[in-house]
Amino acid sequence: MNRKRHLSRPILSVTLTAILLATLGVHAAGAANGDSDNARSAASFMPPPRSALSDDTLKPGFVELVRQGEAIFTDTQTHAAPFVGNKLNCDNCHLDAGRLADSSPLWAAWGMYPAYRGKNKHVNDYPERIQGCFRYSMNGTPPPRGDEVLLALEAYSYWLASGAPVGELLSGRGYPDLDQPAQPPDFTRGKQVYAQHCALCHSADGQGQLAADGSQAFPPLWGANSYNWGAGMHRISTAAGFIKANMPLGAAHLSNQQAWDVARFINSHERPQDPRYTGSLEQTAQQFHGTPNSMYGQRVEGVLLGENAPPSGTAPARRDN
Amino acid sequence: MNRKRHLSRPILSVTLTAILLATLGVHAAGAANGDSDNARSAASFMPPPRSALSDDTLKPGFVELVRQGEAIFTDTQTHAAPFVGNKLNCDNCHLDAGRLADSSPLWAAWGMYPAYRGKNKHVNDYPERIQGCFRYSMNGTPPPRGDEVLLALEAYSYWLASGAPVGELLSGRGYPDLDQPAQPPDFTRGKQVYAQHCALCHSADGQGQLAADGSQAFPPLWGANSYNWGAGMHRISTAAGFIKANMPLGAAHLSNQQAWDVARFINSHERPQDPRYTGSLEQTAQQFHGTPNSMYGQRVEGVLLGENAPPSGTAPARRDN
Repeated sequence: MNRKRHLSRPILSVTLTAILLATLGVHAAGAANGDSDNARSAASFMPPPRSALSDDTLKPGFVELVRQGEAIFTDTQTHAAPFVGNKLNCDNCHLDAGRLADSSPLWAAWGMYPAYRGKNKHVNDYPERIQGCFRYSMNGTPPPRGDEVLLALEAYSYWLASGAPVGELLSGRGYPDLDQPAQPPDFTRGKQVYAQHCALCHSADGQGQLAADGSQAFPPLWGANSYNWGAGMHRISTAAGFIKANMPLGAAHLSNQQAWDVARFINSHERPQDPRYTGSLEQTAQQFHGTPNSMYGQRVEGVLLGENAPPSGTAPARRDN
Repeated sequence: MNRKRHLSRPILSVTLTAILLATLGVHAAGAANGDSDNARSAASFMPPPRSALSDDTLKPGFVELVRQGEAIFTDTQTHAAPFVGNKLNCDNCHLDAGRLADSSPLWAAWGMYPAYRGKNKHVNDYPERIQGCFRYSMNGTPPPRGDEVLLALEAYSYWLASGAPVGELLSGRGYPDLDQPAQPPDFTRGKQVYAQHCALCHSADGQGQLAADGSQAFPPLWGANSYNWGAGMHRISTAAGFIKANMPLGAAHLSNQQAWDVARFINSHERPQDPRYTGSLEQTAQQFHGTPNSMYGQRVEGVLLGENAPPSGTAPARRDN
């Protein structure tokens, strides 16, 4: 395979950004707007273009499985419905169909498993890691091991990682770690950032918007149809990194402070219960959540977050995933 | 990680070869002995040395799991006993603990899955591929998905593949494809090769030898305690490639013709039944075995091979793995 893929930013992503800018009628922010620390990292790896995925008579079924994985990833609501308990799709958090650097791209994740995860305190292989996404981010019931949904997502990730070195941290992996803001993240300032930069797509009530065909064009950020209290994105630091690198979509330009503030605002709303809920809000908060990065179990504007959470997905995953 | 690992033959393997030569009291064969076509390939990748596997407090359990995988791989009889139905260990076919080029090294296998397999006609991920080894080569009951034995073998393979490019064929992968021999492989010539070059370790009756502690020092090559009629190694071409590259152990020097002949001889003995056995030898042979590469269902010295085969491992794997 072509080693040049390792050297520069994905052309597709640049193109997509341009298309999004045009579609959304948004002007690029430019360097003048706010601080420029923690800007997007230069991706060190380029996944193969979609056009490189061609039928290979020596591998019947492989290409179809990769395509199925991509379909699941970009329209999880349709293609993995039994395992989803909210209105999200995988690519709401992993933009550009899992290709975009600094948006937890699949090509950077594939080569890092099996790996220990502090979250469940054991070594997870890739299928188990995907099960975790279904349980928390998708507030659902993880597909069982061996299910074709998992296999298709494995095949898609594997193919996107073609040529990537196994076990090496690739630039652009995960979400950026933002520097701490000058001022502690603040709900009220975040509310203003949200109204100014986010509500156009995600709506004032945070429930996103439907497309003309009824599909979820922009995802809900809180409430029963969003990620639950166990998802990584409920942590203010994770959301701030994602937002800083990627939001507003196609025209990311918020300052670090704005990203932290709006992340705190978004994650100060009720959402589905943590699937690890022990029966006691206080105990669950103490065992699985740490202040100030999680608002779970804290009181915001009179609401004790987690107290009246909508239900989490029903079926438990293997062990404590 | 050190990119130099990609450039040259494993030093460890060279060292091991020297040790084996000394241990076995064998003299290196030199280029003068027989044809030199299809010699060992120059490996393009070097797995990390054992010494590089050090505890990482950030990844509790990972190193232990890799070590567990290595232990399972080199002493499968002890560490994966419930899943093994013969007297083999993984490293009987994957020499040097899965590190040796041209001996199906794990570092070259890891990055090639998920992949379509003609054997079961669907895309297999790595855990399923390992299940296949247990079912056929180990004549056993594959560990179920999610079992720690599979996870440990995944972790060990992944670690050996550190830095290898995902999805790229690495030199030294699998067993060499030998050129067809000048004369068709022959049982009688093979019998002579076996007596001269193989029986010292594997015994005249093909049952190998036990070490002083009762463990299987040299593996049985046929009979109830060897690989079954469904294993890749029962194919004459596969065995010939393995033998040419690796046998006699530490001093491989057989000619292509000798390797083909002795592979035919070894694989012309009864062994455990093919787990896919339909109830009819003729039908099973027709459906899963092709002449002249498989002797299953053929008559050799009065024995109809497969007719009185010892039982195969009992539990069926998922689907038709």
